[in-house]
Amino acid sequence: MPIPTDAFFLDHADGLPLQVQLRRQIIAAVAAGRFRPEEKLPSTRALARHLGVARVTVAQAFAELVSTDYLSSRDRSGHYISDTVERRLEAEPLAPAAAGFDWGQRIDGRFLRAQRRDRDHDWRRFAYPFVYGQADPTLVDHAAWRDCAMRTLGRREFDAVTGDLYDADDPELVDHIARQILPRRGISAGRDEILLTMGAQNALWLVAQVLLRAGTACAIEDPCYPGLREILAARAARVLPVPVDGSGLPPDAIPPGVAVVFTTASHQCPTNSTMPLPRRKQLLARAQAQGFAVVEDDYEFEMSFAGAPSPALKAIDRAGAVIYVGSFSKSVFPGLRLGYLVADPRVIAEARALRGMMLRHPPGHMQRTLAHFLSLGHYDAQANRMRRAYARRREVMLAAMAAEGLRLASPEATGGSSFWLAAPGGVDSAELAARLKRREVLIEPGAPFFHQPAAGQDFFRLAYSSIPSEHIPEGIRRIGATLRELGG
Amino acid sequence: MPIPTDAFFLDHADGLPLQVQLRRQIIAAVAAGRFRPEEKLPSTRALARHLGVARVTVAQAFAELVSTDYLSSRDRSGHYISDTVERRLEAEPLAPAAAGFDWGQRIDGRFLRAQRRDRDHDWRRFAYPFVYGQADPTLVDHAAWRDCAMRTLGRREFDAVTGDLYDADDPELVDHIARQILPRRGISAGRDEILLTMGAQNALWLVAQVLLRAGTACAIEDPCYPGLREILAARAARVLPVPVDGSGLPPDAIPPGVAVVFTTASHQCPTNSTMPLPRRKQLLARAQAQGFAVVEDDYEFEMSFAGAPSPALKAIDRAGAVIYVGSFSKSVFPGLRLGYLVADPRVIAEARALRGMMLRHPPGHMQRTLAHFLSLGHYDAQANRMRRAYARRREVMLAAMAAEGLRLASPEATGGSSFWLAAPGGVDSAELAARLKRREVLIEPGAPFFHQPAAGQDFFRLAYSSIPSEHIPEGIRRIGATLRELGG
Repeated sequence: MPIPTDAFFLDHADGLPLQVQLRRQIIAAVAAGRFRPEEKLPSTRALARHLGVARVTVAQAFAELVSTDYLSSRDRSGHYISDTVERRLEAEPLAPAAAGFDWGQRIDGRFLRAQRRDRDHDWRRFAYPFVYGQADPTLVDHAAWRDCAMRTLGRREFDAVTGDLYDADDPELVDHIARQILPRRGISAGRDEILLTMGAQNALWLVAQVLLRAGTACAIEDPCYPGLREILAARAARVLPVPVDGSGLPPDAIPPGVAVVFTTASHQCPTNSTMPLPRRKQLLARAQAQGFAVVEDDYEFEMSFAGAPSPALKAIDRAGAVIYVGSFSKSVFPGLRLGYLVADPRVIAEARALRGMMLRHPPGHMQRTLAHFLSLGHYDAQANRMRRAYARRREVMLAAMAAEGLRLASPEATGGSSFWLAAPGGVDSAELAARLKRREVLIEPGAPFFHQPAAGQDFFRLAYSSIPSEHIPEGIRRIGATLRELGG
Repeated sequence: MPIPTDAFFLDHADGLPLQVQLRRQIIAAVAAGRFRPEEKLPSTRALARHLGVARVTVAQAFAELVSTDYLSSRDRSGHYISDTVERRLEAEPLAPAAAGFDWGQRIDGRFLRAQRRDRDHDWRRFAYPFVYGQADPTLVDHAAWRDCAMRTLGRREFDAVTGDLYDADDPELVDHIARQILPRRGISAGRDEILLTMGAQNALWLVAQVLLRAGTACAIEDPCYPGLREILAARAARVLPVPVDGSGLPPDAIPPGVAVVFTTASHQCPTNSTMPLPRRKQLLARAQAQGFAVVEDDYEFEMSFAGAPSPALKAIDRAGAVIYVGSFSKSVFPGLRLGYLVADPRVIAEARALRGMMLRHPPGHMQRTLAHFLSLGHYDAQANRMRRAYARRREVMLAAMAAEGLRLASPEATGGSSFWLAAPGGVDSAELAARLKRREVLIEPGAPFFHQPAAGQDFFRLAYSSIPSEHIPEGIRRIGATLRELGG
């Protein structure tokens, strides 16, 4: 039975080339079973007339579909839905079985319970998104990334990046990290001391699996990065929170008997305070004396505004007790999902074995494209551009916050892409966030950062990495107004 | 101090554009500390003369480096290394500390111990690689993939794929899997029943974490996929092997008390046998009666030669006890690292929470590019092309193996991209593999597939997915000759 021309339509406003739209429409109809094998398509002339497009557009779409086996072409008689496409199986009628499978009994839900729930998937729909960790499209060098991706997509490199690397990394990317990135943090590392990860989150996950067992005691900063807390909860580790002060984690307060200490020394998350050098040395001395490992999450060192960043703990660690976590999520973009671990070769070998069996390796295309982005200087240029833009936004933020009387919880902190604020007495930041959300403003209430969530109701975070400068004053104005409504 | 022209050289045979080589060379010299801030570069004229290139080539490289902040340009006086690049920190002299950190005491090595070690990273260097699971570059539609990647790299889509999706997937890819792929397996699934994973390996890893605890009993096929065995060993599950026969896993032999049964029903790995429909129904009935979950790894259903593939277990599972694992590694390419789970929404929700905290999500670029590859019909075309090529290679393999007297261990198996062979009496397939490796031939000895490795010495696998047809006869001839040497 011939398929009528009425079965086809095009959306001229869709933005996709008409030829592509037509192809997608035919493929979708075949997939859905609306077009069947051996059915004849309208002639290119008739379909072109019906759709109001050039005949060559229809002919091109048909030719492409013949080459992908969706259509077959028969001389003089036209085009048919190919009989090789239909390998669709009819599902058995899914009459509910006598008894469904009892999953509730088999899944204990520990991952869902441990999962943080403080993020808005639809943050882009808000006019004033003071959300942390998302890229600002105006600061990502789209053209440079595309250029680097194009190199990776060339014949010359394509075969290398399409293969299964088993547990290995792209040596080009590892080399660029070792030569271009780590020296800025004062770190010198060989290939067997570096492992690529799916972002810093994955690096922390790997470290937690390698170093911790259920019940192992570990110290974390309080407040701290919620993504770390969910990992430790899922691992059932014994988590000992250490309250931070204006200089970050106080080494004297680390309880005895911990196996691992997690720290964000260069930029405490979420307070943004920086650990001074004497305290860093003290922390490392204690690590040596007490025998704990230190996991240093250096997640946004590129965003340091006040001159050169201080050296990483890893750079001054003479005993080899530090595991360093780096990320490209902030300085390139988060959808990249690339970060890295730097540690003793024994730690790296164990983490590599685990990564190999849990996901093999980050996709070859992403690794090689990032290697080009580094080798051609785009990474530096983009980090510089972001740093300058964030410094400007920071000034706009400071002025707007001062005008509204908002109070910084750690005024001495510099750099980064966010502020940590104290809510006025009596105001619950979760309630503040809920009200602001109805006014197109997204903020991050403090509770998810704290070991005891109630301790967080006095705080909130305002990030300025994803909000354009010109929206900042109005966003802050709404926050100020809502605070006053709440009696703050 | 000016940098002398002698500090520069170009490799005309390198293949990279000269302008790009020059940029990379300058960036590397800055990163290595050989070129210092404020040092003056040679003039474009002098450097072009020295390098034997057009002056515009040097000028372009310099202009690009100015735009990426590596160089600064001063009117009339030329180009200088920028003073913003040098944020390199000098590492503290790493005099070995009094006592190094004792990692051996802190890492129990369970992942390294569990890791399989049967894969050759350098398989590409062998003339006769009968290795499984790697893509053949001549069968991957490089141009189509590049075209789809280009769409993803356009302005229109770039912002969406660079963001942090938290625990979400690209809805376009999920839709195409639900509409184009699953119906061929007879499976109908909604969005909350599908989770994207970093390949099938990651899918199996997630399932093992969600369903198993240390000591949980689970049944696996024997022999089975070694990647599954490493996951279960790392999880410390109690693994009960069930010997397979020519029809795959015999449901009657599944021991009582298991929580999960892992099966490769459509294409038993490594024997390639297919489970007949009556046995599938029997397996599902037992799952219902005994209360175990079934994990169905349908890793290469596209490579079925004998007409339509049989419906997946998932398609005829009325109780909802089946967790389905799919992969694009075989039908697109393994470096993509994309696969998926289809299961009850409760299973998917728990696995999604785990995936979110362990890696967030597969990179946006890869997800969207694959969505285009599916929507434009390239996936079908490529799978068809691979199936035809493999069917031809299979004939070449069969003829060559018959000529050398090699014996198939499961002669009734069809499809796939490998054969499972019985080694002649007295020949250890590990010894065979070691000798062949010295003769440019890679085969997979049987031991890693078996619960008791010794049971595998009588078997080996020959895959034909990565070896060109014209190399097959000589490769098989060498295998035959080596077998005869070993007394087989």
